[in-house]
Amino acid sequence: VGKDGKNGGREGKAKRPRKLLTIADWQRAARQRLPRPAYDYFRSGADDELTLERNERAYDDWVIWYRVLRDVSAPRLATTVLGQEIQSPILIAPTAYHRMAHPDGELGTARAAAARGTILVASTLATTSLEEIAEATRAPKWFQLYVHKDRGFTKSLVERAEAAGYDAIVVTVDTPVLGRRLRDERGGFGLPEGLRMENLVAALAEGPPDGSTLSHYVADRHDASLTFADLAWLRELSHMPVVVKGVVRADDAAACVSAGVAGIIVSNHGGRQLDGAPATIDAVSGVVDAVGGRADVLVDGGIRRGTDVLKALALGARAVLVGRPVLWGLAVGGEAGVVAVLELLDKELARAMALAGCASVAELDRGLVARSRAR
Amino acid sequence: VGKDGKNGGREGKAKRPRKLLTIADWQRAARQRLPRPAYDYFRSGADDELTLERNERAYDDWVIWYRVLRDVSAPRLATTVLGQEIQSPILIAPTAYHRMAHPDGELGTARAAAARGTILVASTLATTSLEEIAEATRAPKWFQLYVHKDRGFTKSLVERAEAAGYDAIVVTVDTPVLGRRLRDERGGFGLPEGLRMENLVAALAEGPPDGSTLSHYVADRHDASLTFADLAWLRELSHMPVVVKGVVRADDAAACVSAGVAGIIVSNHGGRQLDGAPATIDAVSGVVDAVGGRADVLVDGGIRRGTDVLKALALGARAVLVGRPVLWGLAVGGEAGVVAVLELLDKELARAMALAGCASVAELDRGLVARSRAR
Amino acid sequence: VGKDGKNGGREGKAKRPRKLLTIADWQRAARQRLPRPAYDYFRSGADDELTLERNERAYDDWVIWYRVLRDVSAPRLATTVLGQEIQSPILIAPTAYHRMAHPDGELGTARAAAARGTILVASTLATTSLEEIAEATRAPKWFQLYVHKDRGFTKSLVERAEAAGYDAIVVTVDTPVLGRRLRDERGGFGLPEGLRMENLVAALAEGPPDGSTLSHYVADRHDASLTFADLAWLRELSHMPVVVKGVVRADDAAACVSAGVAGIIVSNHGGRQLDGAPATIDAVSGVVDAVGGRADVLVDGGIRRGTDVLKALALGARAVLVGRPVLWGLAVGGEAGVVAVLELLDKELARAMALAGCASVAELDRGLVARSRAR
Amino acid sequence: VGKDGKNGGREGKAKRPRKLLTIADWQRAARQRLPRPAYDYFRSGADDELTLERNERAYDDWVIWYRVLRDVSAPRLATTVLGQEIQSPILIAPTAYHRMAHPDGELGTARAAAARGTILVASTLATTSLEEIAEATRAPKWFQLYVHKDRGFTKSLVERAEAAGYDAIVVTVDTPVLGRRLRDERGGFGLPEGLRMENLVAALAEGPPDGSTLSHYVADRHDASLTFADLAWLRELSHMPVVVKGVVRADDAAACVSAGVAGIIVSNHGGRQLDGAPATIDAVSGVVDAVGGRADVLVDGGIRRGTDVLKALALGARAVLVGRPVLWGLAVGGEAGVVAVLELLDKELARAMALAGCASVAELDRGLVARSRAR
Repeated sequence: VGKDGKNGGREGKAKRPRKLLTIADWQRAARQRLPRPAYDYFRSGADDELTLERNERAYDDWVIWYRVLRDVSAPRLATTVLGQEIQSPILIAPTAYHRMAHPDGELGTARAAAARGTILVASTLATTSLEEIAEATRAPKWFQLYVHKDRGFTKSLVERAEAAGYDAIVVTVDTPVLGRRLRDERGGFGLPEGLRMENLVAALAEGPPDGSTLSHYVADRHDASLTFADLAWLRELSHMPVVVKGVVRADDAAACVSAGVAGIIVSNHGGRQLDGAPATIDAVSGVVDAVGGRADVLVDGGIRRGTDVLKALALGARAVLVGRPVLWGLAVGGEAGVVAVLELLDKELARAMALAGCASVAELDRGLVARSRAR
Repeated sequence: VGKDGKNGGREGKAKRPRKLLTIADWQRAARQRLPRPAYDYFRSGADDELTLERNERAYDDWVIWYRVLRDVSAPRLATTVLGQEIQSPILIAPTAYHRMAHPDGELGTARAAAARGTILVASTLATTSLEEIAEATRAPKWFQLYVHKDRGFTKSLVERAEAAGYDAIVVTVDTPVLGRRLRDERGGFGLPEGLRMENLVAALAEGPPDGSTLSHYVADRHDASLTFADLAWLRELSHMPVVVKGVVRADDAAACVSAGVAGIIVSNHGGRQLDGAPATIDAVSGVVDAVGGRADVLVDGGIRRGTDVLKALALGARAVLVGRPVLWGLAVGGEAGVVAVLELLDKELARAMALAGCASVAELDRGLVARSRAR
Repeated sequence: VGKDGKNGGREGKAKRPRKLLTIADWQRAARQRLPRPAYDYFRSGADDELTLERNERAYDDWVIWYRVLRDVSAPRLATTVLGQEIQSPILIAPTAYHRMAHPDGELGTARAAAARGTILVASTLATTSLEEIAEATRAPKWFQLYVHKDRGFTKSLVERAEAAGYDAIVVTVDTPVLGRRLRDERGGFGLPEGLRMENLVAALAEGPPDGSTLSHYVADRHDASLTFADLAWLRELSHMPVVVKGVVRADDAAACVSAGVAGIIVSNHGGRQLDGAPATIDAVSGVVDAVGGRADVLVDGGIRRGTDVLKALALGARAVLVGRPVLWGLAVGGEAGVVAVLELLDKELARAMALAGCASVAELDRGLVARSRAR
Repeated sequence: VGKDGKNGGREGKAKRPRKLLTIADWQRAARQRLPRPAYDYFRSGADDELTLERNERAYDDWVIWYRVLRDVSAPRLATTVLGQEIQSPILIAPTAYHRMAHPDGELGTARAAAARGTILVASTLATTSLEEIAEATRAPKWFQLYVHKDRGFTKSLVERAEAAGYDAIVVTVDTPVLGRRLRDERGGFGLPEGLRMENLVAALAEGPPDGSTLSHYVADRHDASLTFADLAWLRELSHMPVVVKGVVRADDAAACVSAGVAGIIVSNHGGRQLDGAPATIDAVSGVVDAVGGRADVLVDGGIRRGTDVLKALALGARAVLVGRPVLWGLAVGGEAGVVAVLELLDKELARAMALAGCASVAELDRGLVARSRAR
């Protein structure tokens, strides 16, 4: 897959600009490199972007009551999710169209995840087929699924994922209809020439329309009648554990667990679906309490710093997922950029843990954080 | 009524500009088209406009704890108010001087309401007579009433409304005196040449003065001694149910219900009366609890998005009313503009309901919303 | 006293600019007319002006849960303080150097108070002697007192006030030392040529120094050892009731009442003394509860609108005092300007009361206001 | 030590600019004089500087419910810490590299502390040896210590401090690893030519690298495995009492006290370590309660005004420490600048105490302050 120059004026990996010290730096660099519609597609949220902004800002409302005089000479990030050991509690969230960010595309992202010892959650809307992605790495990987009205097609996706060696199915439940992204509508967003949703080629036989029309076209195929009862059906389709992504309510999380899911991802789709949804970090502890250890709870949305990860883990999440930061890494440096971004976040997390007096993620507990009273 | 060119440089309906994706877009477009004094009259609030701003902003303080995995394949907006079935819980609030926004005037607004299956609340201060409005549509419609010191004249208004086929009387109780709108005073606002308050022609025999003077002239005729006891008198004037508009307190709402009213509209007159009044959305649940199902509770003020409507209904309102958004639609596209604005809000509400896991307005309950803790 | 042209380029009273619709308008107009040092002296607060700003802003944190359907056809502002009937609950706070604002000086202010049926509290630091002020009007008036280290001189001031016909002594207790006003220090503020503190002429025999030095000079004479015990001494000096100005704490207010004072003015000296003091409106209800009706409670600081007055009275203040607004009126229009400003505030209060469903100040109770939850 | 002109274009002490009325003024003046990298090194915080900003802003969230009618004719700042009498409760916090601010360096700071009757806490990272500093003044002084992995070297530092006459050891516990200061990394910060960390010369035999690399080099030698158990070891190294600096948690403070420390400094390293830590003023009362009088509690971070000091003492701190303000004084005026800054803060504190009705620091109690409700 093309690291060969197709990428035109972009600098190659070897010339990755220095002084990208924070995820915000990476985002700025990505903004300079990406065509505006692509950048807007990746960064934008639904409607007035209240939830998009709230996701990030809510982390600042939590302060870390750090501990001192603990032996933090060897902080350890390793943990397990769904029973699998990983080297970092920071996973890669499913996002669409990686080849729109960089020719390395999903293969670069998958290899970077493997290099960092973490898990890629591959998207249904990938621009690389799930089989190709699976071939690129032997590391653990999960497949994100949209349940289609065409249940047969849905079943075929699950079966393909199992055959390709994926370790879990992540079913997205916050998208019965598509949120409205004004930037895409105003800009007339469309997939660039030559890219397509490789997992859906069969289903899109008639030739996919382009642009945001495409999104609607795909969304039209989503099954808006999906209920908790269907989770049992989904579990029967394969031996893979099922993770539900898009939950913010404690009662919904409990119902998912009763339906036998192995994990819950507290998520509001990065602020791209219901504008007005709560910040995900504000939803974590309620879900964790409701789940009561019967499933792994993860969270995504608004995580931009190691201290954000620390706060999420302290509030009870077993791991977190990052989406946009990975895309900025990919846009700037392809596979190596993703590695660099993951490494940056890991180092920030390790430093934050040491400064908070915690030598392992198991020591991050709820007593470590509290809402700021000073604001 | 003139869609014929009187409107001068304005684009006709057929050329309505594209990309009006939000009510804010419609407002910007209206601002460009309307003469400044007219725009200012419509948009402004009393004094420092604290309540005007608070009405809108307060919605952002509520977050939607959306539900997932419910069958939302067929979201349904239809509901009933005062026993009448309507296709959308979004009614048209009474506002003055529609012909100042567009030659279609109140007739355009009335037809648009009918087209969307909702209710127009026609204003006492209309620039079209209540009879003409009633002739324009067979759809349900309510008449908004200012009680005048001249009770005989007041009675004649009610009788005319009943004769014309109105379905309810909406008595405004937040205007014993007129709030001060600084923009109108500074700009010397006056009704444009050729427009007049058609319902009041008889009462204004001596020839109405113009400008904000006019407002004061009218206000001088309002009865500032109106009390709960007068509601009984008002009920006796016709067979129409009485709705009280302008209540924010739970005790006042309960007193209105004891006086036999059929509905309460929680309203602060769009921030145009008492600057310092609470945001209406913050008043809804208190009024709903006090009324205890004995009357329908509606709310207006600050509603600019489908998610705002969802929040109001979740907090217990049976329906909402929108004023300024309708005026922006009217200003930009006449009757068709109003249809478009109502359709936009309906679609936003339907999408919000689907994303919140609610297939009908009856499923919108208080557990769906909570104040944001993150701000 | 010079309304004769000494005032140079300023417009006379007859040409008072139109469209001064709010106190903010009057302030802007005053800013244009006053020399910068004078304007800065009047408007500034201590240090970083946190309390100055907080005084005003705190009013916006209270919302008015207005009542409807009450007979407000004849709202009545009249009330009593210290047993004296006044036509408005808005008194004139003691402020220094009125002749620096306008040649009318304190005589203009006194006559304006009489014209509006309210009370002037004349300042120790007046540029007109207390006797001349008293001669200008037969209306009720109070004298504000700084207790000097020289108790004999202090006694003479009280005796002069009683002889001149003042109705109460207002002793300022928030100024044991002078707050630091950075603008005055940076600008080298000094009393303009020809003006002097007429009440202190005898005490300042050696010729007063000028500028902020003057303030310090005066402050040096204040008695920083004044305690509650001295209030008894002060009461013995005359038959006039004693009002204590500058209290924010409930326990201090109770101690003052135990010492026999007739009134408490909740005040932080308009933010000119301790920067970091609470907003006065936030202190009112605590003081009112502690006083329990044994003395009249008044409040000043940050009042710029009729709704501010309404909120203060609703929280239990018997009356309010305004300082800077009066100075802006004086600067712009002399005596007539003060009348206009007082009339503006009275009208705003009357309108706010009508819109809140209150026909008299006695109906303003605590249930009418609450802290905003939406911010 | 060079007040002789080495300082190049800087004005000498005699020409110290007038009108430096506040610490903010001093900071602005220092900014103009210091090379940008030096200024940035001194002023910056870790990462996004959330905690840096929070430290300062949190003080504004506390209001002073000042008392009146107390005898404040002779406010007294003197107090004791660790049993030593000092003339002011404002100590000098340990900060690095004083000679980078001014040729007077640590000697100037030490002499200024002595002149003002307060305590200098000399830093391990001083650009003057601890022995030279001790020779400069007979006033009480404390030595700040980083525990190095090389415990023998650590021991030698403590022994040198005791031999030189220091009165206490202040062990910093919030720096197991170094916080990330982006400004220094971007600017490539390095110690200017000719300056070195004089206390570490022996340990840095191989010749210290420069720039932020230096910081990392030093940090690498810090012992990240330090625990409460090591406090006993530290106590045994000398007869000096041990003060722990960098605690924000009540439980950590209690554990320190159990380990026999004489004092706790509530500190987050001026926002330079864990970004996301609470404002120190918000941590004071919890620590004070946990310590229960068994040790002296001090606080640093964000103190820029006399009222800030008052609030910290009212919340239970025995004294405070200021770091950056001292550096601004040093940069602008050398030793005399530090004296002036300390005098400014003392005067502000004395004025604030008088205005709050407190004649001595012992009268500053918790009832004097409360969180602002108005924001």
